[in-house]
Amino acid sequence: MMTKESEQTAITPTRTQDYPEWFQQVVKQADMAENSPVRGCMVIKPWGYGVWENMQRELDQRIKSTGHQNAYFPLFIPLSFLEKEAAHVEGFAKECAVVTHHRLEERNGRLVPTGELEEPLIVRPTSETIIGESFSRWVESYRDLPLLINQWANVVRWEMRPRVFLRTTEFLWQEGHTAHASEEEAIEETLKMHQVYRDFFENVLAIPVILGEKSPGERFPGAVSTYTLETMMQDRKALQGGTSHYLGQNFAKASNIRFNNKEGSTEYAYTTSWGVTTRMIGAMIMCHGDDDGLRLPPRIAPKQIVIMPVVPKPDQEEAVFAYADLIAARLRACQFYGQALSVHVDKRDKRGGEKNWEWIKKGVPLRIEVGPRDIEAQAMMVGRRDQPHKTKAKVALAQIGDEAVAMLTDMQRNYFEQARQFRDSHIHTNVTTFEDLIRFFTPKNVDKPEIHGGFVLAKWCGDAATEKMLDEHKLSIRCLPLEQSGTEGKCILTGRTATLDVIIAKSY
Amino acid sequence: MMTKESEQTAITPTRTQDYPEWFQQVVKQADMAENSPVRGCMVIKPWGYGVWENMQRELDQRIKSTGHQNAYFPLFIPLSFLEKEAAHVEGFAKECAVVTHHRLEERNGRLVPTGELEEPLIVRPTSETIIGESFSRWVESYRDLPLLINQWANVVRWEMRPRVFLRTTEFLWQEGHTAHASEEEAIEETLKMHQVYRDFFENVLAIPVILGEKSPGERFPGAVSTYTLETMMQDRKALQGGTSHYLGQNFAKASNIRFNNKEGSTEYAYTTSWGVTTRMIGAMIMCHGDDDGLRLPPRIAPKQIVIMPVVPKPDQEEAVFAYADLIAARLRACQFYGQALSVHVDKRDKRGGEKNWEWIKKGVPLRIEVGPRDIEAQAMMVGRRDQPHKTKAKVALAQIGDEAVAMLTDMQRNYFEQARQFRDSHIHTNVTTFEDLIRFFTPKNVDKPEIHGGFVLAKWCGDAATEKMLDEHKLSIRCLPLEQSGTEGKCILTGRTATLDVIIAKSY
Repeated sequence: MMTKESEQTAITPTRTQDYPEWFQQVVKQADMAENSPVRGCMVIKPWGYGVWENMQRELDQRIKSTGHQNAYFPLFIPLSFLEKEAAHVEGFAKECAVVTHHRLEERNGRLVPTGELEEPLIVRPTSETIIGESFSRWVESYRDLPLLINQWANVVRWEMRPRVFLRTTEFLWQEGHTAHASEEEAIEETLKMHQVYRDFFENVLAIPVILGEKSPGERFPGAVSTYTLETMMQDRKALQGGTSHYLGQNFAKASNIRFNNKEGSTEYAYTTSWGVTTRMIGAMIMCHGDDDGLRLPPRIAPKQIVIMPVVPKPDQEEAVFAYADLIAARLRACQFYGQALSVHVDKRDKRGGEKNWEWIKKGVPLRIEVGPRDIEAQAMMVGRRDQPHKTKAKVALAQIGDEAVAMLTDMQRNYFEQARQFRDSHIHTNVTTFEDLIRFFTPKNVDKPEIHGGFVLAKWCGDAATEKMLDEHKLSIRCLPLEQSGTEGKCILTGRTATLDVIIAKSY
Repeated sequence: MMTKESEQTAITPTRTQDYPEWFQQVVKQADMAENSPVRGCMVIKPWGYGVWENMQRELDQRIKSTGHQNAYFPLFIPLSFLEKEAAHVEGFAKECAVVTHHRLEERNGRLVPTGELEEPLIVRPTSETIIGESFSRWVESYRDLPLLINQWANVVRWEMRPRVFLRTTEFLWQEGHTAHASEEEAIEETLKMHQVYRDFFENVLAIPVILGEKSPGERFPGAVSTYTLETMMQDRKALQGGTSHYLGQNFAKASNIRFNNKEGSTEYAYTTSWGVTTRMIGAMIMCHGDDDGLRLPPRIAPKQIVIMPVVPKPDQEEAVFAYADLIAARLRACQFYGQALSVHVDKRDKRGGEKNWEWIKKGVPLRIEVGPRDIEAQAMMVGRRDQPHKTKAKVALAQIGDEAVAMLTDMQRNYFEQARQFRDSHIHTNVTTFEDLIRFFTPKNVDKPEIHGGFVLAKWCGDAATEKMLDEHKLSIRCLPLEQSGTEGKCILTGRTATLDVIIAKSY
């Protein structure tokens, strides 16, 4: 997926030159988001937010069709609520926004906080505790279960080293929270949503995932088990795409969610939670982008097709614009995955080359240029973002609808296939000892540390205490893949006999 | 719209007995929302959030089709930003949530806030100042204008006397923010969005509005002019449905939004902002609800039709359920205002009467009961929420799609027409002096203060200082209607010669 460095690229630096800076430049050149004057908080600009809206639409459909309903809970959580679940406090209550006052007063020409609160409020870092309080009132009998709720919201986790889309103090997400009458049913829910996310990542975002369970050291604070979707970026680092947690009765006990079961006795409910965030936008950029900028999978692109009228002489403008509008109307009448095609006609008074490169950098799947000669020919030139920018296909007006849908379908598959091949070619099974592991993740070619690394698939004995060996090397067990080989081997950390397959990698 | 008090009603108290408590009971019985343990913050439950989602969908379409794009800006605003626009501070910076710390530490078994911020952050009460900062960077030339941005977000304004949906510390809304190269264009935008809101209120929410401009005392802090949509609730009080503000260059100066105009010189942009909130849900409840609970206009109902299978004997269940599902499938294939009909089949193991009343209280437009005899007759009984609960129409299976759409269309119109007649019959033009005004708004029948009052349409001299006369009587100038008669008369406050028409009322 890397282009030759000798070619001129739209993004500087290239991925191989400086991957982190390449990412920042892609975001900037595609006009997706920017840092704000509030430390760690980003502004999501229309092109980035359009991607998020499409993600929301696709995910919301899937969340609803699996029986969940949306609701909305308070932004603020009383401090005492966070103290209820010990492991949860430990994991979350460290870095968060604390509201201590509810009024401002002018003193000596400056505004100062007054009206101190009796109990400080925390801006939600996640909503288990505040939603649990509602659930404790909503659930009385087994007849009230399962309770299947989802929330779209903003959350805040104070970030010391923020990076746009990947790690921001405020981010947007959905968080599902469910309560069940039995452990079996709650685990089934946890795994069902894990699969819903897989479908969304692979079929909509075109990002291949490895489904697995987190090791104890990487679990959600307070969870019994955490299921993850691990993705590989083009610098070969792992990015956790989303998580689905089985919480057992831990949070039900903390929030007092009890129900009368069929036998007439009272017991605590079994709960789950699951979420994905605006970080997915970062994952999508880093998975599919190239040295010319963003490449948007068609199913998630705010605009799937941009039509650029090319007007050599002013008196040709009317005819060329009308032809562009005609093509747009035909395309908008076509369906792609149940939605009308999203088409933009770019009539701005700018040079054609400049416009063309703007849309390339924004990752629009199809670019159509039309001029007077195309009207005569009743045809047009179509450029695909998954092909070199000079490659163009001539398509007749009569065929454009069918052709566009066919090309988009092909591109959606291509992006997934390219990402899958890239990932699979960087999963290593020949690293089997701790020494080898450290050597493997130590860049030998210091000029290009970015093209080093990958996922190491190895054996692990399962001893939670051994995970810490990885910390100082900035490595971690990404997951225990759901697909386990069942073979026996030697633990990569301890050398002991081991049967568990694990993925070890550097990660975002 | 009031039912006779002698009848049994599903909501206690009735509207005439205690209107504020009736509202709380409707919200509770319809299971729309509840108070949370965080003072002033509500939990919006699925039925209430479903209404909000439909409002969002309908409004979002209209906002986009008028050329705006969605984006997202930070939740937090640095304290110093609020100090930039003097009038804005005065109006807003009083009651808000202030974040002063970014960390919690455990001390003696309790969590305490640490990590004090150098500059406190305010949880946005509205985003003019933080969005203005972005605009100042985005705008350089007249070619960058107009900038047409909308945001869906949560905002916080500390409430001392919260009431669910009507006045909550945290609420959800959309806020449009636009910047333009000329005053004319910005005013045109302000008025355009005012009309977009009117269309939404009248045609979707079925709530008639009076469009008008706010008097100086009621303007948005920092605005040059504020346009409002005033609605009348069934207790005859006014509720401000939404506002659209022309901000002149005030906020552009505060945020330094400057552009190079066509003539090559630099000037400040002209900005607007406009918003509507979850308060609209409260308005819809209070405008259409009756003593049996909520009445949802079909275009905004989370479910437009509920089908209740009635199963006299267990062995009939399969056939009755199948028949109910068949009807649901036929209905879902029908379109109502461009959307598939939203249908729920209620198969819960509950008494028919109990289910029926649940859906009545939730305001579902159409209720269909089906039993074994209906299968034989290939028909069903349909009850409309705008008719007495015992009134039912027999509809043949073959006709149900067309009939349901016709009924829903009729109901949508009915709700609007009923509300319009109620409002028009409570606009008074015969109150012309201040003495009369105070007498008019002083309840004579102390048993039923709720059925007193209305809108007084009178003359006003336009002297901003005189508005304060209304404060102690808890009255206000709701607006100067856009439709002005142009006649001359005597100012209701001062007796001076006056030409302006104004609406005076008590309000939410």
